[in-house]
Amino acid sequence: MTGHAPSPLPHSAPSEGAGFVVAFQPSGRRGRFPAGKDLLSIARELGVEIESICGGKGVCKKCRVRVENPSATATATAAEAEGAARTTDAASARTTDAASARTTDAAATPGRASYACVTPPTEIEARALGDEALAAGMRLACQTRVAGDVRVFVPEESRRTIQVVRKEAGGRTVPLDPAVRSYHVVLRPPTLGDAKADAERLLAALAGQHGLTGLEFDFEVLQAFPGIARSAGWDLVAIVWQSQPAGGTIVEVRPAEKPGRALGLAVDVGTTTIAAYLTDLTTGEVVATESAMNPQVAFGDDVIARLHYAIHNADGREELQRTVIDEVNDLARKAAAGSGTSVGDIFDTVMVGNTAMHHLFLGLDARALGAAPFAPAVQGAVDTRASALGLRFHRGCRLHVLPVEAGFVGADNVAVIIAEEPYAQDEVLLIIDIGTNGELVLGDRTRMLSTSCATGPALEGAHLEFGMRAAPGAIERIRIDPETLDVRFKVIGLDGWHTDHPARDVGARGICGSGIIEAAAEMRKAGIILPGGGFNPEVSHERVILENGKPRRFVIARAEETAIGRAITVSLKDIRAIQLAKAALRAGAEILLRTYGTQRPDKVILAGAFGTYIDKHHALAIGMLPDCEPDKVTSVGNAAGDGARFALLNLGKRREAAWVAGRVEFIELATDPDFQREYVKAMEFGPISAIPEE
Amino acid sequence: MTGHAPSPLPHSAPSEGAGFVVAFQPSGRRGRFPAGKDLLSIARELGVEIESICGGKGVCKKCRVRVENPSATATATAAEAEGAARTTDAASARTTDAASARTTDAAATPGRASYACVTPPTEIEARALGDEALAAGMRLACQTRVAGDVRVFVPEESRRTIQVVRKEAGGRTVPLDPAVRSYHVVLRPPTLGDAKADAERLLAALAGQHGLTGLEFDFEVLQAFPGIARSAGWDLVAIVWQSQPAGGTIVEVRPAEKPGRALGLAVDVGTTTIAAYLTDLTTGEVVATESAMNPQVAFGDDVIARLHYAIHNADGREELQRTVIDEVNDLARKAAAGSGTSVGDIFDTVMVGNTAMHHLFLGLDARALGAAPFAPAVQGAVDTRASALGLRFHRGCRLHVLPVEAGFVGADNVAVIIAEEPYAQDEVLLIIDIGTNGELVLGDRTRMLSTSCATGPALEGAHLEFGMRAAPGAIERIRIDPETLDVRFKVIGLDGWHTDHPARDVGARGICGSGIIEAAAEMRKAGIILPGGGFNPEVSHERVILENGKPRRFVIARAEETAIGRAITVSLKDIRAIQLAKAALRAGAEILLRTYGTQRPDKVILAGAFGTYIDKHHALAIGMLPDCEPDKVTSVGNAAGDGARFALLNLGKRREAAWVAGRVEFIELATDPDFQREYVKAMEFGPISAIPEE
Repeated sequence: MTGHAPSPLPHSAPSEGAGFVVAFQPSGRRGRFPAGKDLLSIARELGVEIESICGGKGVCKKCRVRVENPSATATATAAEAEGAARTTDAASARTTDAASARTTDAAATPGRASYACVTPPTEIEARALGDEALAAGMRLACQTRVAGDVRVFVPEESRRTIQVVRKEAGGRTVPLDPAVRSYHVVLRPPTLGDAKADAERLLAALAGQHGLTGLEFDFEVLQAFPGIARSAGWDLVAIVWQSQPAGGTIVEVRPAEKPGRALGLAVDVGTTTIAAYLTDLTTGEVVATESAMNPQVAFGDDVIARLHYAIHNADGREELQRTVIDEVNDLARKAAAGSGTSVGDIFDTVMVGNTAMHHLFLGLDARALGAAPFAPAVQGAVDTRASALGLRFHRGCRLHVLPVEAGFVGADNVAVIIAEEPYAQDEVLLIIDIGTNGELVLGDRTRMLSTSCATGPALEGAHLEFGMRAAPGAIERIRIDPETLDVRFKVIGLDGWHTDHPARDVGARGICGSGIIEAAAEMRKAGIILPGGGFNPEVSHERVILENGKPRRFVIARAEETAIGRAITVSLKDIRAIQLAKAALRAGAEILLRTYGTQRPDKVILAGAFGTYIDKHHALAIGMLPDCEPDKVTSVGNAAGDGARFALLNLGKRREAAWVAGRVEFIELATDPDFQREYVKAMEFGPISAIPEE
Repeated sequence: MTGHAPSPLPHSAPSEGAGFVVAFQPSGRRGRFPAGKDLLSIARELGVEIESICGGKGVCKKCRVRVENPSATATATAAEAEGAARTTDAASARTTDAASARTTDAAATPGRASYACVTPPTEIEARALGDEALAAGMRLACQTRVAGDVRVFVPEESRRTIQVVRKEAGGRTVPLDPAVRSYHVVLRPPTLGDAKADAERLLAALAGQHGLTGLEFDFEVLQAFPGIARSAGWDLVAIVWQSQPAGGTIVEVRPAEKPGRALGLAVDVGTTTIAAYLTDLTTGEVVATESAMNPQVAFGDDVIARLHYAIHNADGREELQRTVIDEVNDLARKAAAGSGTSVGDIFDTVMVGNTAMHHLFLGLDARALGAAPFAPAVQGAVDTRASALGLRFHRGCRLHVLPVEAGFVGADNVAVIIAEEPYAQDEVLLIIDIGTNGELVLGDRTRMLSTSCATGPALEGAHLEFGMRAAPGAIERIRIDPETLDVRFKVIGLDGWHTDHPARDVGARGICGSGIIEAAAEMRKAGIILPGGGFNPEVSHERVILENGKPRRFVIARAEETAIGRAITVSLKDIRAIQLAKAALRAGAEILLRTYGTQRPDKVILAGAFGTYIDKHHALAIGMLPDCEPDKVTSVGNAAGDGARFALLNLGKRREAAWVAGRVEFIELATDPDFQREYVKAMEFGPISAIPEE
């Protein structure tokens, strides 16, 4: 909705220079175009959204517009004239301003229903619209060509709604309805006879030209407005923040000639990773994506350690907040630099994260979050100025933080839910968002349950002997031949299996989360480890390394295949870590299924970066997921980030999030009498199901 | 409404220590009091407003309250029991909490309608209230004495409305209804079974205990709230800004034990003088008043010079704003220091001033104000955070600036109008607010006109040869004997006439505005000057000093009577300055009278500091005021400051101001065809009317 035209002209300017002025309402966009050009093409050039399905053939009738200054001097038939007189709409459509009326009269030609400012209606239009609508000025934009200065009103039903699409498979779309929009507006300068104040002049123009009422000014905008209005010749773009259906705040006013852009930033602050999506609020498109490690890891790998630091150190809270805010500023700067945009054009920000990240990001006193009963400082959505947190975007940039669900199930989970919309499904979805914690949602349109499992960092490749993040050099795929115990693996950054390369080119550096899952599954399948997780003492192989005479590790990559000068192995301790993680997830899922009253989910959705890389067959094989057909398991990538982006681009999604946060039933595993039993049961590696060959 | 009790106890605490807990609803105030003390006295000690006219004799029946935990176990008569059963109100009044019910039962005694927690109804109450009301728990606070822990509900009709009174003669009152109020609230701490977030816990308590809904948090309050709530033991005072009927913002939360105060500051920024009124928002009382010269005089005496500086110097706007803001900060600090209060307790500020002062105070781009058509940056009321301007009060302090009326008739004039309320009068008022400019309002309930006259600074004693402000040493009263041309005068700081003191003790330093008016009137009356303003060449006297052989000055104080080592005189130039000033005012008034369609006003109100000191007889004598009986002329002091204070203490006055700003018709003198004639006519000194002897 950034209302800037290639060649903006003030309202009051009559026809000057080559071509004619075409102005669209209610968007206020305008420009100068040559005679004979059709209105649909012009609308597209100006960025005015007009629906069109048939591609301009005049058959879909979607591109209906109203030409607002048709000449009333020549109509083809008496019936048409009568029709016009009967129609109230026609009367208002005839209300012309002096300048257009002049142009219109001068160029008036006879015809079926002749308008001086546009070409006469075609036969296609006559059939599509009928006499009465034609007499009221209705036209099909694709059939109507410029013949003079013209003002065109685009009715609500003809405005195309931009759909924001998720890139991921099976992703949903939401209509573009952001909190921040820009409006092109042309003001008449004050005169002695009309010395209305500048601010009220702009408010009146926004009301008259765009129907916006009840607006306020950001104070800094008010301070500078008189100068901006005059230097821009009263031809302006107002950027308005409207988080509620009524009212709004003018957060910026710029010359229409240099309107800048209206950008938004969606931020997913994970315990380990921060992802930022720089987004165009006018088109919904993601301009740039950046991510980085959460620098708070310097204060502790997990949320408990960081909360402890924040609570027990003077200025700890401020320090942790500054750390994450600095990183978000950096990510935004990188995203802007990489896309040729400016952080000064970021007018809205949506943040999601787990409750601890949420508190530390907002600088909330988190002392109550660190101990039972774990009351958060705030549950509802938080709206504030981004500058209140030290985010250095546009001075008037707002921040919306999605609501917290319960305890440690936070705004990130709410974001996942509004991205996946289980509440709109007939099938029972199990959504597993695997980060440093595992967050589970089970439900459908009738009921939603959620819980949080302490999976530990093993699934992210952390705290394992050769664990590493999914980065170049990480072993991400592993196959073990059950007969020979020969190993094939894939390394990030290396094409195909490692066996396709000379050993010295493999350069493995460690094992990432998806690799360790496969290692466990393959080792179990090959009988190297027993159902209980211990090494099988009966397996003797050069890859099985003994300690104190007992098998304790298995060699995945030989020293010559690594870049670290020694073999990369999976140890008994690593297997135990995986067991604990998968048992926590599985037991949580089972408790949710039991609480819901079903045996198995209809679909399993793996969210989070880890969920993208994990091989579902191996995950099923080690019993990490509840029983489920493999083809019912899908990965959706960073659903929390998608939810944040949806909330950035669609106000309805914010309301949905508030509803979700109150609707989801949180299941506390610690107090569930069945949890311990499920957990112990899930520790076991059961019979390994089939893993398809790759 | 600062809800703090001498001995606050949480809701859930049962009776402990000496005495009983008495809690009032809806204010939430509570304290511990000895048995036998009456509820009206207790209410007064706690600051709970209960109406009482008869002084506790039980005859006015104004102090009706409802005791919310009467025992239902013993009633005197079957009729009463039946009455109670019939009354829905009674049923809800019986809803007792466990702690009170325990106390009640334990102390229950038989009686006419016995309540364990209070003494039984007296005969006076039985007559005053009737059986049904008694059964419903209604009592007279003055007759009811504590006998146990008790909760008392004060119905709306029994709550006393504090009236804010103007000190000045004929002043009006407004009910206390400020934008910022504080509420005492007691929260139940979170438990494992109720781990609701802290913020939502406070919101629920404010809704439940005070009926406040739709509240938001100032972000900084939200950040710190968990720590404050816990260190205060969940016994809190919330300070809420509610500028609209619905919603509001929590701007501070404090421990109920240390609630501080809720103060407001009303500021009248004049071109020459700044006045600040530090006010208690809970009682309406003015805690301290401070005033100082507007330090912007360093940038120019008049508004045009200052606007010029702001517009034509880099950072001029910021410099002028900083200057005035620093002074207001200083005034607030002095006011707080002098009254033992803290600027950190200032939660609301109202500013008024003429349009130039308004723009320079707010740091608005004023370039359009400096040239025709003189469009202000904004006309409507401005609401922002005080900190946005650099005011260093409470972090969450708000600022409300009254609306501008038209051109240079500004928010100060709107303030004068809401203080004097011509729109509520049947008589036609002429309000003259004399500052550096003269601002006139003429009107009644049917119509209001206003205009602004360039009086120049002479009426403030500036730009005269011996002119000075009304400060110690200033000659403020003058009498000239028409026969002998002997002079008597009064000096500020000296008792009585100067002739009562030895010459060396007089110590005059100059002449202030009221003195110069009297000098002109007396000189004309004595024939020293002619109707046209020139010196009468026929008057020869030792006090009349010649220059180039022509009379050019008149000695008011001889050199030995002054502290400046030379005589204080009134020169021809001084008389000319007074003539210009009075002619501008008079001509403006005549144009308003003519436009309204009347010959003379029913009342003349002199506002502004100058209006307080001026002698109305002399002002009438020199023709500064339109024809009017002297007893119809009254001085009301700083009415603009009073209007600011009213707007600070009563939200309705803010709405009234918005209405006034749109309703007053501004008369542009410069374009009025009659103005020049009236102005020339008003330059003359007409026949001098009687001036009573003092």
